[in-house]
Amino acid sequence: MTWLELPPDSRFGLANLPYGVFSGHDGYPSAPRVGVRFGDSVLDLLSALADPVFGEPSLNAFMARGRGQWSEARATITELLTAERHRATVEAALYPLSEVRLHLPFEVGDYVDFYASEHHATNVGRLFRPGAEPLTPNWKYQPIGYHGRSGTVMVSGTPVSRPRGQLPGAFAPTVGASQQLDFEAEVGFVVGVGSSAPLSVGEFADHVFGVFLVNDWSARDIQSWESRPLGPFLSKSFATSISPWIVPLEALEHARVGSPPQYPKPLPYLADAGSSGLDLQLEVRLNGQVVSRPPFATMYWSPAQMLAHMTVNGASTRTGDFYASGTVSGPDREQRGCLLELSWGGAEPLALADGSERSFLEDGDEVAITATAPAADGTRIGFGAITGRILPAAAGPGRAD
Amino acid sequence: MTWLELPPDSRFGLANLPYGVFSGHDGYPSAPRVGVRFGDSVLDLLSALADPVFGEPSLNAFMARGRGQWSEARATITELLTAERHRATVEAALYPLSEVRLHLPFEVGDYVDFYASEHHATNVGRLFRPGAEPLTPNWKYQPIGYHGRSGTVMVSGTPVSRPRGQLPGAFAPTVGASQQLDFEAEVGFVVGVGSSAPLSVGEFADHVFGVFLVNDWSARDIQSWESRPLGPFLSKSFATSISPWIVPLEALEHARVGSPPQYPKPLPYLADAGSSGLDLQLEVRLNGQVVSRPPFATMYWSPAQMLAHMTVNGASTRTGDFYASGTVSGPDREQRGCLLELSWGGAEPLALADGSERSFLEDGDEVAITATAPAADGTRIGFGAITGRILPAAAGPGRAD
Repeated sequence: MTWLELPPDSRFGLANLPYGVFSGHDGYPSAPRVGVRFGDSVLDLLSALADPVFGEPSLNAFMARGRGQWSEARATITELLTAERHRATVEAALYPLSEVRLHLPFEVGDYVDFYASEHHATNVGRLFRPGAEPLTPNWKYQPIGYHGRSGTVMVSGTPVSRPRGQLPGAFAPTVGASQQLDFEAEVGFVVGVGSSAPLSVGEFADHVFGVFLVNDWSARDIQSWESRPLGPFLSKSFATSISPWIVPLEALEHARVGSPPQYPKPLPYLADAGSSGLDLQLEVRLNGQVVSRPPFATMYWSPAQMLAHMTVNGASTRTGDFYASGTVSGPDREQRGCLLELSWGGAEPLALADGSERSFLEDGDEVAITATAPAADGTRIGFGAITGRILPAAAGPGRAD
Repeated sequence: MTWLELPPDSRFGLANLPYGVFSGHDGYPSAPRVGVRFGDSVLDLLSALADPVFGEPSLNAFMARGRGQWSEARATITELLTAERHRATVEAALYPLSEVRLHLPFEVGDYVDFYASEHHATNVGRLFRPGAEPLTPNWKYQPIGYHGRSGTVMVSGTPVSRPRGQLPGAFAPTVGASQQLDFEAEVGFVVGVGSSAPLSVGEFADHVFGVFLVNDWSARDIQSWESRPLGPFLSKSFATSISPWIVPLEALEHARVGSPPQYPKPLPYLADAGSSGLDLQLEVRLNGQVVSRPPFATMYWSPAQMLAHMTVNGASTRTGDFYASGTVSGPDREQRGCLLELSWGGAEPLALADGSERSFLEDGDEVAITATAPAADGTRIGFGAITGRILPAAAGPGRAD
């Protein structure tokens, strides 16, 4: 219980306490600093806990402290928010969410994007390589991944300009604004404590600080033309949005589930005996209308398996590195996490409530991705939304649009 | 002329003046700072120029100042090294190369690796996709690239542990140390001044600070198994070595050449009217023996075209981002920039002077890559060597080796 009033169905109560970086819209506090979301407020941790690590403009220094201190800080914050004697301290350090600006919560090191949903990979294989086996022979042996562009990772709310690039043509490519702009609903995992040695599946919770949502914006026309043989590049590198709140792993204890059965049996370094899957329920809205509810529990590869694979070659990890799951798609049509799948490459456009149809995103469209996860006693905790509105392509090479 | 004695054939004279970051092996200066190589010495720029930007442990702050100040600093350094009245200042700020330690010269933002040699791409296509057209249909329309791992970029001299990972097997993959470890001789370009808008071919010299060598270590067995459909990942992410000295673009004015003829004609945003190719002559030594002399002038895509392509989608660039050319291979066998090509996938092992053969790298092997470029009056300037010795695989998953 807490002396603070929270709506009874708040998904940002004591069971959650996600971390972010905020500043005042105007006035104090002006410099970005670390806060915790509680209900519809932000608790200024520098002010409440007087620890300079929370005066940093990113979570990195705090994340680097390690699991023991993550847990201690969470206990201290819980105590602050519940004990009447801290009321004055807390009240002086609380800001309404509506009065703050949220920043990128951590300084991004390397960004790796996986491709860990069997339903998504199968659908994309059918669409991009018709007639061939939808899954490549390696897919069930390893979580396939690739490196994305760290410098264009941005916080929720940042508008996304439609990218330009080479588009496939009948005889030769053309250059212009992408006509197949898409979202991808994904889940991200940030490394708090890096390592110079490979990390085992069992070391996941000692190294991963928390979980958030990712929208891996994708230009499907650019992608289909550029991706052979080295994979996606400019079709993804223009923008990746992440949610402003990092939900600590400790808040997701009740969300742990087993992954779906894996056959062939994973190689020993990928064996995941425990329940390291996560029962997150995502929701994607397009201009306010729910268009998909991707279930993260259906992912073939678990986040711990992704981390083990990413480091098996000896690649070091650093505080602020993050990896994303790849598009989360369930087995049903209304569980598909991107428009490419939802509209089946444009063959089956999505009907919207306003009478319009979408195969891909149009200028002015707004995409919002949220998620919830089970907490204690049948309640649920929430992930901060990622929102992003599509702006027309900026001036640039190629035809006007 | 300079009052300092330089060997007559020094490739690190006044025409070169590359920048790096150094510290004393022991004693002063202890904190890494910026220096310029002159002959076999390093000039401590903080001490000589009293500008705190050179007291930083990376070149980033200096690179961010822009082309005008790059040029000014070069002129000032030239004046220091030539005017007798500065002799005392310079002598107090010079350290023998043998007495300093060289560090990673800049803090790496994003790292993009291209695939811009037609000879290399053709050879690799033949080896990895026998029976198919060696070049994918997009190859002559755009410089194909992908993002690499920034966190494992390291300075020359750092040993490289043989990576582990999934290796292709007859029925299923195995896990173990790579048996096909390779080098790739490449040329790198670091962004000094970033941009939030696409950069044109003509803007290259306003944004790229300098040029260096790159060894993109590659595990071919891991690569061939993992790369479909998203490209190379763990086969490259374990280590990338770069040379310690960044040669400023201004030092390469005499090395500018036209690129080979491009057909089909590049799309307008890639049109490169000027001579933005570079006549760098690379040399690769394996255990001291020259095994290849890759000519950078034969690259199909120019560095300016790579930059224009990398940003055409609106992806922003930051100080410290760098991109590499991909393996530099010329048309002749002895100009191939990696063992995969030199040994034709192991079918034609390379005979070494000690009587041994190499299809791929063995533990203890040392690879050194150097390069020279034409300067004024028929002289040549040099690039600092990248050296790297292969260590046995660290303990890890899979079979012992």
